[in-house]
Amino acid sequence: MKIDRANAEAVGRMIEAHPVLVGLRPALEVIPGMQEDLILHAGPPIIWEQMAGPMRGAVVGAILFEGRARTEAEAVAQIVSGGVRLEPCHHHQAVGPMAGVTTPSMPVYVVENRTHGNRAFCSLNEGYGKVLRFGAFSPEVLDRLAWMRDVAAPVFSSAIEAAGGIDLRTLIAEALQMGDEGHNRNRAASNLLMKALAPSVARCAPSAEIASSVLQFMADNAIGALNPIMAACKAMADAAQEVEDSTLVYAMARNGTDFGIRVSGMGDRWFTAPVAVPQGLFFPGFRAEDAAGDLGDSTITETAGIGGFAMAAAPAIVAFVGGSPKDATNTTLEMYEITSAEHRYFSIPSLGFRGTPVGIDIRKVVELGITPRVNTGIAHREPGIGQIGAGLVRPPLAAFEAALVAYAETYGY
Amino acid sequence: MKIDRANAEAVGRMIEAHPVLVGLRPALEVIPGMQEDLILHAGPPIIWEQMAGPMRGAVVGAILFEGRARTEAEAVAQIVSGGVRLEPCHHHQAVGPMAGVTTPSMPVYVVENRTHGNRAFCSLNEGYGKVLRFGAFSPEVLDRLAWMRDVAAPVFSSAIEAAGGIDLRTLIAEALQMGDEGHNRNRAASNLLMKALAPSVARCAPSAEIASSVLQFMADNAIGALNPIMAACKAMADAAQEVEDSTLVYAMARNGTDFGIRVSGMGDRWFTAPVAVPQGLFFPGFRAEDAAGDLGDSTITETAGIGGFAMAAAPAIVAFVGGSPKDATNTTLEMYEITSAEHRYFSIPSLGFRGTPVGIDIRKVVELGITPRVNTGIAHREPGIGQIGAGLVRPPLAAFEAALVAYAETYGY
Repeated sequence: MKIDRANAEAVGRMIEAHPVLVGLRPALEVIPGMQEDLILHAGPPIIWEQMAGPMRGAVVGAILFEGRARTEAEAVAQIVSGGVRLEPCHHHQAVGPMAGVTTPSMPVYVVENRTHGNRAFCSLNEGYGKVLRFGAFSPEVLDRLAWMRDVAAPVFSSAIEAAGGIDLRTLIAEALQMGDEGHNRNRAASNLLMKALAPSVARCAPSAEIASSVLQFMADNAIGALNPIMAACKAMADAAQEVEDSTLVYAMARNGTDFGIRVSGMGDRWFTAPVAVPQGLFFPGFRAEDAAGDLGDSTITETAGIGGFAMAAAPAIVAFVGGSPKDATNTTLEMYEITSAEHRYFSIPSLGFRGTPVGIDIRKVVELGITPRVNTGIAHREPGIGQIGAGLVRPPLAAFEAALVAYAETYGY
Repeated sequence: MKIDRANAEAVGRMIEAHPVLVGLRPALEVIPGMQEDLILHAGPPIIWEQMAGPMRGAVVGAILFEGRARTEAEAVAQIVSGGVRLEPCHHHQAVGPMAGVTTPSMPVYVVENRTHGNRAFCSLNEGYGKVLRFGAFSPEVLDRLAWMRDVAAPVFSSAIEAAGGIDLRTLIAEALQMGDEGHNRNRAASNLLMKALAPSVARCAPSAEIASSVLQFMADNAIGALNPIMAACKAMADAAQEVEDSTLVYAMARNGTDFGIRVSGMGDRWFTAPVAVPQGLFFPGFRAEDAAGDLGDSTITETAGIGGFAMAAAPAIVAFVGGSPKDATNTTLEMYEITSAEHRYFSIPSLGFRGTPVGIDIRKVVELGITPRVNTGIAHREPGIGQIGAGLVRPPLAAFEAALVAYAETYGY
């Protein structure tokens, strides 16, 4: 049947996409349509007035970081006057975790899909604690971002080129054999990335001291690989876009206010619904009432068949997000119900090396009433505080229903 | 009852031992009783005439490496004349993988048990292909050993000290959450070791080129962490020795000819029986008939509650050793039958974070007829060829029976 054939084509492209990390460059230089006055954010489009706390904090921080304002009030004035424009990362072949805020001067990973030629971009991961992506913009946050841009990025950039690029499909596949799921647990992948780059970092850095500090920055961040993996997933998912008749999801993203999806056979339209609030484990001193709404482009991992969909590969993650190892296995098993294929390159040892579930079909989601399972970090609802926990979330069914209704209207079946 | 109390004491010591990597020094400098004319080997004591092919090759290579002979014939003459002496690593607080050959000038990891104060030692891992530990001694093998001793070791030594030592109990515990079992699969642990050392390597190396080459050496060896982990296991297991009445095994080792164990309540006596031949998967071009007998001190990992005993943590290992992930789980479950405790620090996510089985009780082994399960590399039976596969092996029951008979004679019960 026509739809099934289209979906097989779309998911086949997603699976056969071959993402390779080829560089780290300033966003302005490489992201299509990036401009000096443009700031990118996570999720579907949203205006300033409707943005949630962490997203607002991150946008203010981004304007301060770019030197376009000296105070929070000046930054807000810039936004309100239109001196700074806000657009989704996804409209520029990019993705960003949590607030996803990406500015012109920020270094971004450049990932190339060697099979189909498309590229995708994602910022460098800042690490833990008070960080821009969770809405913090204190001087320590901006200082770290400046060090990342001015000191670390040139070293990483040279090291990636000296290493001849890094095959991210292989890296993700190996990390899944090492207890990662690729979204909330990226310990193995971060170590693999460090292993791939460390010899070149030592050779390319302008001094032993800088080499050491850059390696320490990598060593201290167990989710450093999330960002290049997100870019890899974006490159894979984008390979599945614009297949006529296809009901496959090629983007899921949250801006803290709305959750949105894009569907292969429906062009670049967003289908949205209000975000849910993640359930999970909270850091000491925080509780469920402090949580912001679901946030970030990192759902691109689930879109591409890892993250929550590969949770059976990562039983140890339950210590971070809650539940039991059995729940983790069941999460993956449930996702086979709403997907159209099993991944050829990403497999789960404990399930007898079965391929991960990949290719979310909006028909199955709506028919079964089973929404995707997403692993995610949890931000505080107020700007400037940061991460307060981690857990799981199910996006709203309404977004998938809206997409299916629109699909039926468009195609007449 | 008296024996159970003694075993609880012995296994409690083994579990509470806290191994920390504190240095890398020449064997002659740190190993107790090491001498210029002494070469250490794996397993229980054995004379040259009874040594298997890979062990003979490694001993010859060791003598060439130390510059005590220029040809194989000269090396053999040295051994026969007594110009070089051969003793087990285990008689000198040391362990070595496969042939386990350790010479006076070789750098060895120094591991300290912070709880009980004892130390243990193990050589640096050479990597893959033609290597001394599998009996190869061609010029490339000896050149690599010289580079390791003269170039890499001083850098590692400084880096370990600059890092303030490395907590190996924590490292092993984390690696078990990342799909390692600590014997045949040490991918995660090797990356964790690299992560811990890389920033200091970059700072301590005499040049960027050397820093880079040392980091590349680590990056290229997915079982590099086996050797410090073996030293850690030796330090933990030795903490359990000499508990009166105890029937717990504190050493298992193979020299390619004999398998031997030592029992806590029986001092330093070895109880031996002829080795079995491992079953597993062979590299292309090799088959079961090419395999040497079981070899190496790496069974110290199983003795300390990891390796084959933690195989349920490492489902992906079956691609290397054969069998299914279910077999891997069953291997661990079976080992609970012959051990006296579950580990407090080493846990298995997929078993609901149950502690690994630890503390082999010779009474249970003999009564149930269940011998330990050991993950192992497989060497070619001829010297100079190297590794030809990997698999599992069960040591001979006769060694445990001999120990139990001797125990009954000694204690009268």
